[in-house]
Amino acid sequence: MARYDFASDNTAGAMPEVMDALVAANAGHAAGYGADHIGKRASELIRALLDVDAEVRFAASGTAANALTLAALAQPHEAVACHEHSHIATDETGAPGFFGSGLGMLTLPGASGRIEPKALDAVLARPDQPHWQSAAALSVTNATEYGAVYAEADLSLLIGAAKAKGLKVHLDGARLANAAAFGFDVKAVKRLGVDVLVLGGTKAGSTPTEAIVLLDKGLERRFGARLKHGGQLVSKARFLAAPWIGMLESGAWAARAAHANAMARKLAALSPFRVTHPVEANAVFVEMDDATLKRLHGAGWFVYRFIDGSVRFMCSWATTAEAVEELGQALAKVREA
Amino acid sequence: MARYDFASDNTAGAMPEVMDALVAANAGHAAGYGADHIGKRASELIRALLDVDAEVRFAASGTAANALTLAALAQPHEAVACHEHSHIATDETGAPGFFGSGLGMLTLPGASGRIEPKALDAVLARPDQPHWQSAAALSVTNATEYGAVYAEADLSLLIGAAKAKGLKVHLDGARLANAAAFGFDVKAVKRLGVDVLVLGGTKAGSTPTEAIVLLDKGLERRFGARLKHGGQLVSKARFLAAPWIGMLESGAWAARAAHANAMARKLAALSPFRVTHPVEANAVFVEMDDATLKRLHGAGWFVYRFIDGSVRFMCSWATTAEAVEELGQALAKVREA
Amino acid sequence: MARYDFASDNTAGAMPEVMDALVAANAGHAAGYGADHIGKRASELIRALLDVDAEVRFAASGTAANALTLAALAQPHEAVACHEHSHIATDETGAPGFFGSGLGMLTLPGASGRIEPKALDAVLARPDQPHWQSAAALSVTNATEYGAVYAEADLSLLIGAAKAKGLKVHLDGARLANAAAFGFDVKAVKRLGVDVLVLGGTKAGSTPTEAIVLLDKGLERRFGARLKHGGQLVSKARFLAAPWIGMLESGAWAARAAHANAMARKLAALSPFRVTHPVEANAVFVEMDDATLKRLHGAGWFVYRFIDGSVRFMCSWATTAEAVEELGQALAKVREA
Amino acid sequence: MARYDFASDNTAGAMPEVMDALVAANAGHAAGYGADHIGKRASELIRALLDVDAEVRFAASGTAANALTLAALAQPHEAVACHEHSHIATDETGAPGFFGSGLGMLTLPGASGRIEPKALDAVLARPDQPHWQSAAALSVTNATEYGAVYAEADLSLLIGAAKAKGLKVHLDGARLANAAAFGFDVKAVKRLGVDVLVLGGTKAGSTPTEAIVLLDKGLERRFGARLKHGGQLVSKARFLAAPWIGMLESGAWAARAAHANAMARKLAALSPFRVTHPVEANAVFVEMDDATLKRLHGAGWFVYRFIDGSVRFMCSWATTAEAVEELGQALAKVREA
Repeated sequence: MARYDFASDNTAGAMPEVMDALVAANAGHAAGYGADHIGKRASELIRALLDVDAEVRFAASGTAANALTLAALAQPHEAVACHEHSHIATDETGAPGFFGSGLGMLTLPGASGRIEPKALDAVLARPDQPHWQSAAALSVTNATEYGAVYAEADLSLLIGAAKAKGLKVHLDGARLANAAAFGFDVKAVKRLGVDVLVLGGTKAGSTPTEAIVLLDKGLERRFGARLKHGGQLVSKARFLAAPWIGMLESGAWAARAAHANAMARKLAALSPFRVTHPVEANAVFVEMDDATLKRLHGAGWFVYRFIDGSVRFMCSWATTAEAVEELGQALAKVREA
Repeated sequence: MARYDFASDNTAGAMPEVMDALVAANAGHAAGYGADHIGKRASELIRALLDVDAEVRFAASGTAANALTLAALAQPHEAVACHEHSHIATDETGAPGFFGSGLGMLTLPGASGRIEPKALDAVLARPDQPHWQSAAALSVTNATEYGAVYAEADLSLLIGAAKAKGLKVHLDGARLANAAAFGFDVKAVKRLGVDVLVLGGTKAGSTPTEAIVLLDKGLERRFGARLKHGGQLVSKARFLAAPWIGMLESGAWAARAAHANAMARKLAALSPFRVTHPVEANAVFVEMDDATLKRLHGAGWFVYRFIDGSVRFMCSWATTAEAVEELGQALAKVREA
Repeated sequence: MARYDFASDNTAGAMPEVMDALVAANAGHAAGYGADHIGKRASELIRALLDVDAEVRFAASGTAANALTLAALAQPHEAVACHEHSHIATDETGAPGFFGSGLGMLTLPGASGRIEPKALDAVLARPDQPHWQSAAALSVTNATEYGAVYAEADLSLLIGAAKAKGLKVHLDGARLANAAAFGFDVKAVKRLGVDVLVLGGTKAGSTPTEAIVLLDKGLERRFGARLKHGGQLVSKARFLAAPWIGMLESGAWAARAAHANAMARKLAALSPFRVTHPVEANAVFVEMDDATLKRLHGAGWFVYRFIDGSVRFMCSWATTAEAVEELGQALAKVREA
Repeated sequence: MARYDFASDNTAGAMPEVMDALVAANAGHAAGYGADHIGKRASELIRALLDVDAEVRFAASGTAANALTLAALAQPHEAVACHEHSHIATDETGAPGFFGSGLGMLTLPGASGRIEPKALDAVLARPDQPHWQSAAALSVTNATEYGAVYAEADLSLLIGAAKAKGLKVHLDGARLANAAAFGFDVKAVKRLGVDVLVLGGTKAGSTPTEAIVLLDKGLERRFGARLKHGGQLVSKARFLAAPWIGMLESGAWAARAAHANAMARKLAALSPFRVTHPVEANAVFVEMDDATLKRLHGAGWFVYRFIDGSVRFMCSWATTAEAVEELGQALAKVREA
């Protein structure tokens, strides 16, 4: 039977703190669509985590949370500037274009998923023209798709340049817990001027839930209607909110991300293959030829070749030291073959 | 503290069978996006329930499941014929128009949420014209928004007329369990020629999940991409599938709907107010003036005035005989006041 | 051969002033996409006509001009309040929903196409809810679909109520020339606080062209990109601008509308059928049964039965007194039969 | 005053045959929305030109005609494969994504705007996945954006590969007249299996009009409604049809394209700058540094630097030998400076 342990951080189940919170939230009747005490408590915890005064809503899918909020930040005839390998650009099946009615993407290069500031500057310097979609928003991802972590100063440079040109800012925080575990201060989202944060629950170890944090107060108006119109307003919303109570009251959101990061470092140390990106969060990317990858698949370890040509191993809250060691041995074996 | 027991059937939590199934499904790693053993098992159970050979997918929101599948059945310059008070027409904030890029709605009258066949015939008889959106699909709801249940023969008449004109057929089965408990044979969906069934899990007593059943094989191609593009492909999809294992293996999906229906009948019997629609599923609608409704709200019972002017009481799997009796007493009291 | 003289005011050709202007505009090379001297001159003439300082753009279709600007005034999860028989609600095949990604319509009653103020007040009084699309814009049409003309005070009442609730205002002026000929001061658009005026050229007697007048300066930014994204930025744009030079420099836009209105009055006077709406602009609506209409069609006069059940006769710049008399005789004949 | 002669082939006016046809078409009343005798005659002429039995419709904008028909060939969660520098990918402000609700673009390399067959094969070989938009249509452009002309055999190779995988085929024929003048047999569109041809009128020398030729009969159904829904159904449609009568009855469509191509060859022969693409249609691309281009602009000749870094000169039906010689002298002068 194939092992999906390292295929993604969404192949893991949910951490016990989440399951307990779901059970606790299940008692009794509650108002639907987010207007319940569980949603209220989860929102408070997220505001406290980030030290912000912001409306918080929940969605079952990160793709949807990203696409729907990007559509709120840019008009259809405008574009979002983002990394060329960002999740929104390469792994969401055009969802931003769907939610944004043909919203454009201006994709930018940069090592390990971090946008190269000069590339952003070049896009921001282009004059408006009826013949192309000018940037109305910048989207950054922390930790990046390659498991690298932006320092606050890096983000400040990018966001400062974008804000100076009137752009709005979206932070894809699918793995913000892992960035935080590496040292990124999540309270920086306010200082940095982020307008919308999509705070990752699922990859952090929850059942499906992402928190949409509307730092820009102007977005609050009729946001419930926006969610429902976009198919993102779940009736029994307490089940999207409860996991956050479980993860944040216990500190597990942070602690388990630290564990996932540690597992990635352990794996990188064991890897007999060249590691191709900095191991700062919970991913290890290595150089591996097709024949070797085939042998690894043959040995039962299911992992992906990524856009940049590397093979990716993701660790999660559920990754055990034993599993890392087993994988390390498997890697040694397929290399020798 | 306000009581939401009768405000909707989505103010209840999840039945124990669902919670147990979630816990069971949480063990170990599993492929994401629906390609896992839990999704497979849940799909098999749904196919067995309906006696169909159909692709089954899961979504967290019924609005989304409806809107996304309607968009697959009709093109943007076409329309969906549906009841004027159907959920898709009145309670989804325009989601079908969003998923369908301006897809039109041809709304039809009919008592208690059942479409009047002559009204459908009139729409079907209209010639195509560039100046309006002609019907490409028929959407029916069973049980209806008013808690009435279509007999198979009723649906056969409507669907037969629609199919004769080349329309596709969508069945909103948010409360199909309650229709089934009243006597509607769920295996009829195949005989009737339904193309897409949205099978309700949430209102039946689950955590958020609806099953999209693609009876029309032509819809299967690239449906996963359609889901993801529409923000409806959840990564840890096992948590949307597992509740169905809990509800269907145990028979609770049917049994608990029968209980909800029985609670509605009990409430109707206790109601001192005129009941305005047949109590066939799990809803009781009554005639009540504003002053009385205000007193009821004041007494802590939160319920809604519906589109037709009636006040609606919904029963669910979690409704207890005691709660019905308490409500009955409250109704008697506010009436006298 | 069927006569289309009275079927619509768009069955006429273009007035000579327009054809002359097209020929004049054809000389030499000119920048594309609206950045040419002809577009500049036409814009100046329109600003002078309306006494406004507003960006002016041109589109080949009124449906497109309406839909695209409504999409600029309301977000997809919001709605436009309009008359239930307005062109945008009944005769544009869902285009506002397409351009607006599922933008809703809140349709309001009112005699002869003029919105009943109380009906608007009721819509404006509804609280925001995630379950429906709240109004973000009001659309009014002058002259109305029924050939009635709003007085400035009527519009002021409606627009004042809408503005007080923060709505934007769209004026469908497909037949504003005819309203002006009846006495409506076109300079009132500024006083009234209209945000976008779609000023009709085609029905006024031009080859295809409508002017989009952006009174709200906030809409100017990237409007060229919005037009192109929406398929409305014609490359040889001078051919959409030139007709306005022909119509406005000569005064023909106003004078020929006055003629069309006079022809309608003449026809109404000759009509042996009850006239069902005030004949203020260039339309005559009459009560006529199906058998009579069939005889009229049989006699070669092609006209439509309208949404309200009346039969509609439209006069245009090209309608001659002789044609009106011929039609009058035909009406007398089919009535007697 | 700036000279726009070579800035684009849409900076020219309309040829006399078109203006005469507009005047002729202006007489009398005609049914609207395309159901008139002029539209009928124009359609017949286009069918005869191409030797096809196909529905023909007209639009005022090529961007709209492309975007609307691509949306008819591919679903929103699918993609169109096209050249990376094609007009639809680089010069339409995201219109295909708007008309196609987030329709994706798979952009392919290839010299001088002709798609490299291996690049297409690679895209066609990719398995369907929910995480990306698979190709449902191929779009090719003849003549290409770089003034090169595909031979029938070249197109056959690309289209054959696409059809073998079930893709639909769109031909952007904005400059098909110029391709035909170089030797491309326009009757090949049928043999090649093209599903939709957008046949260029505007750049060929007309007032705004493009012909949408629906070779795939399956697209005819409700196409009028699709046009209107997309804001592309002009009421006085005869003015979009008439130019085709003028261009095709006289043979001017072909003859004037041959002239434009000859002017391009003449210009290429005079160019003191390296010509960077084959001069097969009506464009000349040259290598020119920024300082030189600035001097050329300073001398009053307005031309663009193109995506590939070359400077582009377009010839049109209206380009005179004298203008080419004047430009040749200007080029010699700015080079020496």
